Amino acid sequence: MKVFGEKIHNLPWENKPQGCREVVWRYSKNPIIKRNPILKGSRIFNSAIVPYKNEFVGIFRVDHKDGVPFLHSGRSTDGIQWHIEEEDIKWVDIDGKPFPVNYAYDPRLTKIDDSYYITFCTDDHGPTIGIGTTKDFKTFVRLPNAYVPFNRNGVLFPRKINGKYIMLNRPSDNGHTPFGDIFLSESFDMIHWGNHRYVMGTNKQNWWENLKIGAGPVPIETDAGWLLIYHGVTLTCNGYVYSFGGALLDIDNPDKVLYRGKYYLLTPEEDYETSGFVPNVVFPCTAICDVETGRLAIYYGAADSYIALAFAYIDEIIDFIRKNPN
Amino acid sequence: MKVFGEKIHNLPWENKPQGCREVVWRYSKNPIIKRNPILKGSRIFNSAIVPYKNEFVGIFRVDHKDGVPFLHSGRSTDGIQWHIEEEDIKWVDIDGKPFPVNYAYDPRLTKIDDSYYITFCTDDHGPTIGIGTTKDFKTFVRLPNAYVPFNRNGVLFPRKINGKYIMLNRPSDNGHTPFGDIFLSESFDMIHWGNHRYVMGTNKQNWWENLKIGAGPVPIETDAGWLLIYHGVTLTCNGYVYSFGGALLDIDNPDKVLYRGKYYLLTPEEDYETSGFVPNVVFPCTAICDVETGRLAIYYGAADSYIALAFAYIDEIIDFIRKNPN
Amino acid sequence: MKVFGEKIHNLPWENKPQGCREVVWRYSKNPIIKRNPILKGSRIFNSAIVPYKNEFVGIFRVDHKDGVPFLHSGRSTDGIQWHIEEEDIKWVDIDGKPFPVNYAYDPRLTKIDDSYYITFCTDDHGPTIGIGTTKDFKTFVRLPNAYVPFNRNGVLFPRKINGKYIMLNRPSDNGHTPFGDIFLSESFDMIHWGNHRYVMGTNKQNWWENLKIGAGPVPIETDAGWLLIYHGVTLTCNGYVYSFGGALLDIDNPDKVLYRGKYYLLTPEEDYETSGFVPNVVFPCTAICDVETGRLAIYYGAADSYIALAFAYIDEIIDFIRKNPN
Amino acid sequence: MKVFGEKIHNLPWENKPQGCREVVWRYSKNPIIKRNPILKGSRIFNSAIVPYKNEFVGIFRVDHKDGVPFLHSGRSTDGIQWHIEEEDIKWVDIDGKPFPVNYAYDPRLTKIDDSYYITFCTDDHGPTIGIGTTKDFKTFVRLPNAYVPFNRNGVLFPRKINGKYIMLNRPSDNGHTPFGDIFLSESFDMIHWGNHRYVMGTNKQNWWENLKIGAGPVPIETDAGWLLIYHGVTLTCNGYVYSFGGALLDIDNPDKVLYRGKYYLLTPEEDYETSGFVPNVVFPCTAICDVETGRLAIYYGAADSYIALAFAYIDEIIDFIRKNPN
Amino acid sequence: MKVFGEKIHNLPWENKPQGCREVVWRYSKNPIIKRNPILKGSRIFNSAIVPYKNEFVGIFRVDHKDGVPFLHSGRSTDGIQWHIEEEDIKWVDIDGKPFPVNYAYDPRLTKIDDSYYITFCTDDHGPTIGIGTTKDFKTFVRLPNAYVPFNRNGVLFPRKINGKYIMLNRPSDNGHTPFGDIFLSESFDMIHWGNHRYVMGTNKQNWWENLKIGAGPVPIETDAGWLLIYHGVTLTCNGYVYSFGGALLDIDNPDKVLYRGKYYLLTPEEDYETSGFVPNVVFPCTAICDVETGRLAIYYGAADSYIALAFAYIDEIIDFIRKNPN
Amino acid sequence: MKVFGEKIHNLPWENKPQGCREVVWRYSKNPIIKRNPILKGSRIFNSAIVPYKNEFVGIFRVDHKDGVPFLHSGRSTDGIQWHIEEEDIKWVDIDGKPFPVNYAYDPRLTKIDDSYYITFCTDDHGPTIGIGTTKDFKTFVRLPNAYVPFNRNGVLFPRKINGKYIMLNRPSDNGHTPFGDIFLSESFDMIHWGNHRYVMGTNKQNWWENLKIGAGPVPIETDAGWLLIYHGVTLTCNGYVYSFGGALLDIDNPDKVLYRGKYYLLTPEEDYETSGFVPNVVFPCTAICDVETGRLAIYYGAADSYIALAFAYIDEIIDFIRKNPN
Repeated sequence: MKVFGEKIHNLPWENKPQGCREVVWRYSKNPIIKRNPILKGSRIFNSAIVPYKNEFVGIFRVDHKDGVPFLHSGRSTDGIQWHIEEEDIKWVDIDGKPFPVNYAYDPRLTKIDDSYYITFCTDDHGPTIGIGTTKDFKTFVRLPNAYVPFNRNGVLFPRKINGKYIMLNRPSDNGHTPFGDIFLSESFDMIHWGNHRYVMGTNKQNWWENLKIGAGPVPIETDAGWLLIYHGVTLTCNGYVYSFGGALLDIDNPDKVLYRGKYYLLTPEEDYETSGFVPNVVFPCTAICDVETGRLAIYYGAADSYIALAFAYIDEIIDFIRKNPN
Repeated sequence: MKVFGEKIHNLPWENKPQGCREVVWRYSKNPIIKRNPILKGSRIFNSAIVPYKNEFVGIFRVDHKDGVPFLHSGRSTDGIQWHIEEEDIKWVDIDGKPFPVNYAYDPRLTKIDDSYYITFCTDDHGPTIGIGTTKDFKTFVRLPNAYVPFNRNGVLFPRKINGKYIMLNRPSDNGHTPFGDIFLSESFDMIHWGNHRYVMGTNKQNWWENLKIGAGPVPIETDAGWLLIYHGVTLTCNGYVYSFGGALLDIDNPDKVLYRGKYYLLTPEEDYETSGFVPNVVFPCTAICDVETGRLAIYYGAADSYIALAFAYIDEIIDFIRKNPN
Repeated sequence: MKVFGEKIHNLPWENKPQGCREVVWRYSKNPIIKRNPILKGSRIFNSAIVPYKNEFVGIFRVDHKDGVPFLHSGRSTDGIQWHIEEEDIKWVDIDGKPFPVNYAYDPRLTKIDDSYYITFCTDDHGPTIGIGTTKDFKTFVRLPNAYVPFNRNGVLFPRKINGKYIMLNRPSDNGHTPFGDIFLSESFDMIHWGNHRYVMGTNKQNWWENLKIGAGPVPIETDAGWLLIYHGVTLTCNGYVYSFGGALLDIDNPDKVLYRGKYYLLTPEEDYETSGFVPNVVFPCTAICDVETGRLAIYYGAADSYIALAFAYIDEIIDFIRKNPN
Repeated sequence: MKVFGEKIHNLPWENKPQGCREVVWRYSKNPIIKRNPILKGSRIFNSAIVPYKNEFVGIFRVDHKDGVPFLHSGRSTDGIQWHIEEEDIKWVDIDGKPFPVNYAYDPRLTKIDDSYYITFCTDDHGPTIGIGTTKDFKTFVRLPNAYVPFNRNGVLFPRKINGKYIMLNRPSDNGHTPFGDIFLSESFDMIHWGNHRYVMGTNKQNWWENLKIGAGPVPIETDAGWLLIYHGVTLTCNGYVYSFGGALLDIDNPDKVLYRGKYYLLTPEEDYETSGFVPNVVFPCTAICDVETGRLAIYYGAADSYIALAFAYIDEIIDFIRKNPN
Repeated sequence: MKVFGEKIHNLPWENKPQGCREVVWRYSKNPIIKRNPILKGSRIFNSAIVPYKNEFVGIFRVDHKDGVPFLHSGRSTDGIQWHIEEEDIKWVDIDGKPFPVNYAYDPRLTKIDDSYYITFCTDDHGPTIGIGTTKDFKTFVRLPNAYVPFNRNGVLFPRKINGKYIMLNRPSDNGHTPFGDIFLSESFDMIHWGNHRYVMGTNKQNWWENLKIGAGPVPIETDAGWLLIYHGVTLTCNGYVYSFGGALLDIDNPDKVLYRGKYYLLTPEEDYETSGFVPNVVFPCTAICDVETGRLAIYYGAADSYIALAFAYIDEIIDFIRKNPN
Repeated sequence: MKVFGEKIHNLPWENKPQGCREVVWRYSKNPIIKRNPILKGSRIFNSAIVPYKNEFVGIFRVDHKDGVPFLHSGRSTDGIQWHIEEEDIKWVDIDGKPFPVNYAYDPRLTKIDDSYYITFCTDDHGPTIGIGTTKDFKTFVRLPNAYVPFNRNGVLFPRKINGKYIMLNRPSDNGHTPFGDIFLSESFDMIHWGNHRYVMGTNKQNWWENLKIGAGPVPIETDAGWLLIYHGVTLTCNGYVYSFGGALLDIDNPDKVLYRGKYYLLTPEEDYETSGFVPNVVFPCTAICDVETGRLAIYYGAADSYIALAFAYIDEIIDFIRKNPN
């Protein structure tokens, strides 16, 4: 199987534990970012990371000590030990004027050509998808929001398809949305969006994803299709449980689902996943694949309190999805 | 005061009743369309009408006898007696292939240049704004939906502003939305929409519009600004009450509200408004102004069961809004 | 078409009004029972009637002036003018001892062999289906309830099928149930019920019955199958709307739906249906067919405040259902 | 039976209609105040009236055309034809400085010694009981609110009991309160309130008052106890229904209920009660008794849209309550 | 005190820890079944166990990795180390034809004469009580469901009483039922059920069981009555808490409650009970008593994630219930 | 900075851990009171403590094993090891007659002159503020409740202000109140309360306190104002999270907020705070300051399961609040 992308020689990695029969396994030193990681911030989770100049850069969701989430940048040489900026990102608009935000959370980070796009949830009289861009991780420029409220989990594909930018997104509401399907929109200019199409929705047969779903990391291009890792949510009498699973989308028509896995890939089991600010959450926002080895490092938010790491081989995931379709 | 638009010699009209101190008054023979107006249809309400070749044409919301709403066209010489088509509109896509719909309701009808655009609420895994166009009211062509769900009350301005189409819209949810503000979106091609901006929201000080609001008829251009008639909703212990009021938007920057009336213009009072399929609803979708006389005919849905007519002088309405601002 | 049943020479009747294109039409002197019909009672509605010794007897839901519903018997020679007993039915158990009830409502009345069975909603730590029986409408004997709570709209077939009594029923909850499908249960002894089977449920495509449905009058045996008239409910932003429609069930396997009408047969339109204690309700509990003429008289509760009458020809109804299936 | 109070020679009155078997009957020319009674106001209802210098004065709830309720005073010579002030009451504090209000509704008016006290629902970061006083119905002075939010239906007794002012009240919440019991509080100075005691609550056995209850008019002193007319509310699937009933409280210990009627005295039946801004509401705020004749005139809000009148003989009501206790 | 049942020489057991003042104590090596116990399954909990041929067999609720629960059989020699079948039980109907299920959970296992009956929650257009039977734990035969939906926690008595099978059950709804009382039904043939009677309900005075209750393990016959261990649920602002307590039912009339304990017997305290898929749940489905020693082993689901064990002496439990009645 | 109060030589204390950058830090041996601390009680938390005769006394919320909370007294020499009375406080009224309670919880304990006042949440047909008093912690006298329901978190100031007792309080509802602002009331006699004033409410900008807030420990008098430590609550998709923060109130007009901290002082992070009967709760009810050293010991309930201790220097807290205002 062929994966399109970069070689990442310093990708975090730990071999599958002996006896482990799962496709995805956790890093033994999880969580990699703990509570109160910076003076201003209580919790870092649900964050986005890319390889950058032989290192890694990240855009982190940091819940400040007033409880409000903002985006901070950070850097790491090994993808595990992180230096997070104490100050949140100060956006400017395309004219260079300050562009203040009320809040920002759950970023994704996508390299398209030589630009890095940050898509995240932010406020315009309700939560919607904000878009920002940077080339150097020093100057961050805001574009207009992609949608009217209410929308969340906007995730760009890492290249144009048929000449257009493509964004996955999840129409939502103003609170703890009890529904959620994945849609896709197209744009020529990253500003005007249309040709919206339904991609896939909750699956009432698979209880782990029977309440809502949303796109996770930036899709990974393979010759089996785009690998989409997504979160799925179920509702117990004591609240939501966020797991994650995988699907394969058609390369040229990514609203076409080729395969969708019946089973979750990871569900909350460890203490740092089942207890915390929001118990029972694993929420992946980043998946980095080293094309040489097929190793995949998945960064996920745990319990809205921590960042944790999980590992897999991309061909094993794809195989698992194709052999256990819905 | 100057109104931009057409002379409508056959605009329905009835003088203000003696002693009436209100700005808007009802037609004495309301409702003009009653229950079971066609064999297939139970109720016609919330519908859109334009002058067309010295007559009037309309796009009507018809609730069929299975309870599902569809759009039917209709014609009238006087704007009061209507011939409604027994069959609902059969859409085609731009290639002329059939474009079936699950449901369609609450249409607005906007003439831009020589095309008529129909915006309405329809289904794409949830309610959103459908767009259709016709030139002859015989062939009806569907464009892609303007938004991902959930959206309602999409209303186009009757001309491009700064080179772009402008649509008012109301982000919603999947049911009986208990919130609602008016936004505005721009498009070069009537397909990709962006630069979304908040226009105005509920007003907690004015109880008649403290739950949700939504754009009503196509705005009317005047030298005092765009006259926007919009519905406002309050919640009593026995349900929603829909009234309507007015605002003036800046001609070149229509997300800028110049004046917004403190008082409703019409609230449910008559039997055909307070009782019916949905009690206590007046819901305007059409306002036609004869530029010569300044007479305004407002068509509104009553109790989700009937179409009714109200009249006003446009300068009196604008004066009333400016003298009684929020 | 053949209907199995009795000749009812004095069945209430009024010819279809000229120009009426509907299958079911209303009695012009509706409602036939108005508010405060007896000293103790505020409202009579949702009641059950059978021909009895050349007259008619009925079991009526009477909401007392403390707001609590009880069952009263009544008599009529023409089925229109009714004498209702001032006192509610005093039940005894099979040993003749008093069997008090907290409340009782929405009765159905079924003659099987020479006994009359009354099924109704009553209380056993929650609403469920009570069963009573009488031969003379003077002594009323209670059997054990058919189900644990919560259940409503229990309707017996007018004869045993395959040696067993058959009861339609609608699993419910403790309040204003926002769901509801029709099930069927079997019994050898009218006491122990089993072999429960799903018959039909809400229809999301037909909005008039997309929230809940429930069996109405006792099914009528025809050579086209059992004619089941049932109520269907939709939810508007201002509450429930109860309409009624029809279906045909297989004679020997009545959990098998042969045809189900796409369109309602009657929906609230008249003042006495759209306003009252519960606006927008037509709720049929009785349908009597004269086998000689095929005339059908349908008694229905209107707005939980009145009893009204509608008429139809049974062959027209069956034809309408078969020609307009779901 | 003895009633303590005044002779009211000009009390509105109409004899009981022939054949009427009820204790309370409606005025045949209801409603006495209709929609849009003043230019600023849409609806007048739930209002308080007292005899004053051989005429009547009233404090009226007027819903303005922005939907917000305020209190207006009014005068009448016959208690039926009313002159309502166009401007709402402008309160001052005890130092004579303006005391603005956000909203005010559902007033009661109590004469104690030579002062008139107005208790009403108003805002202090949530609805609570405002208290105002006047001697001349020209100057209106505000005292501090009696309670922290959330409270409604504050009703003063017409004299001190055991040296203290006594106020009935109904703890509530911020919206369409789905619960409600009547409490009583004591005060030496009309400012500090304590010794709160539960008087009576909803009655689950009497369905007309099984959701919430609240005190209505100022209690009337009789030798059978204080006659309290109160509203009781039930919840149907289409909303609340407000009826009213009566109880007798102990003269010296008015938290002690001597008798409480099982049956409502009036329930919504007429069009002006079952349809309107809030369908199915009769809400009494005033009951005036002429001690000479025992005639009782009850003013009640109808459908949150109108003021209506009903009549009774006070001894018949008391007799009815005592003979039909809970 | 006398217990009726078997000698179980290999019953799991651990003595009460020193200093423990409780009637029920936990196994020190809990949980005995942890996460991911089989390849297909994420979590095993709420399961049923019986002694069988000097070993133990169990019917286990296994939540598969698609989140859907199914029943698997398992075997153990010591009742602590379990071999669970990788494949779920494949049901046949009485004719031997496959009887597929959508889901199945919370089984109880009752030996009556020489048959083993499995009662569990399963789907028939909503959750209800499924019944299956086996003699050899190899062939599993499905009988018709005992009830129409919605029902849960069906528990059979271990012998006929007065010639009839008796089943405890808990009428429910379609979701996370916020109410729940225990009823009892009778059957001659394990198919038709009737004579339903209320046994006991929530106890508003005892907060640990003030929201809902449900029968737990199969009742144990003693000369003090049937010992019923049942779960009780309370609602905190952060969700449900499931504890369990005990009651004694009359031997011949088991709807008659002789004693009901005021205090819970076990409430979530340990990490494996307070954290997991559903935090704060202890849910007993099995209690096995060795009649020789009076030792009682209680198997309970913990946090919907694990199986745990607790121990008690049956005479101490009965004594505790009788000395601390409600 | 000057603090008004006592020297407390035996105040519990532990120095700030090295590297700790927070203003408030936890005791390393938390929790100080664990589950099942007395035979009758499951959980002790949210409790009130005062220095008393060189020792400490406390009034403890003890959730009994029937789930119902009652108040127990306790004593300690070091403020860490506690002896809790096995029996709950037996109240008498001012005449010495028993005054039974249904439940009592979340006490605060205030010394005013030579009396100790206990304010707590208790039942009068709904939760409200009970007041009790003692001088010797042996005899406990109940005064009338301060308010009609629904109210919680009543906290007295430790001295009269302008000749009146002052009580902070939080109007609430009957359940898990999803709103809550802090009000203040005045009383001459600790019985009649009035002049209610709004102090401060939720802060939508600070997410940690955007759902509800409530007063915590008795305010501490300093020359910078009254230091009020209060809890703030946010709602995640998995429930409430209770943190606590601080504010400074004007000495003479304590409804005037001088400063209010933007950041929480403590938020749930440790296992004993994030897991338990109610996960994610830190709820302070006591703060004792030694005026000599400025050391502050804060006792707080953790997860509605434990009592924990935190420490701070009062001048650091005040400084932190003033430097980080809202």
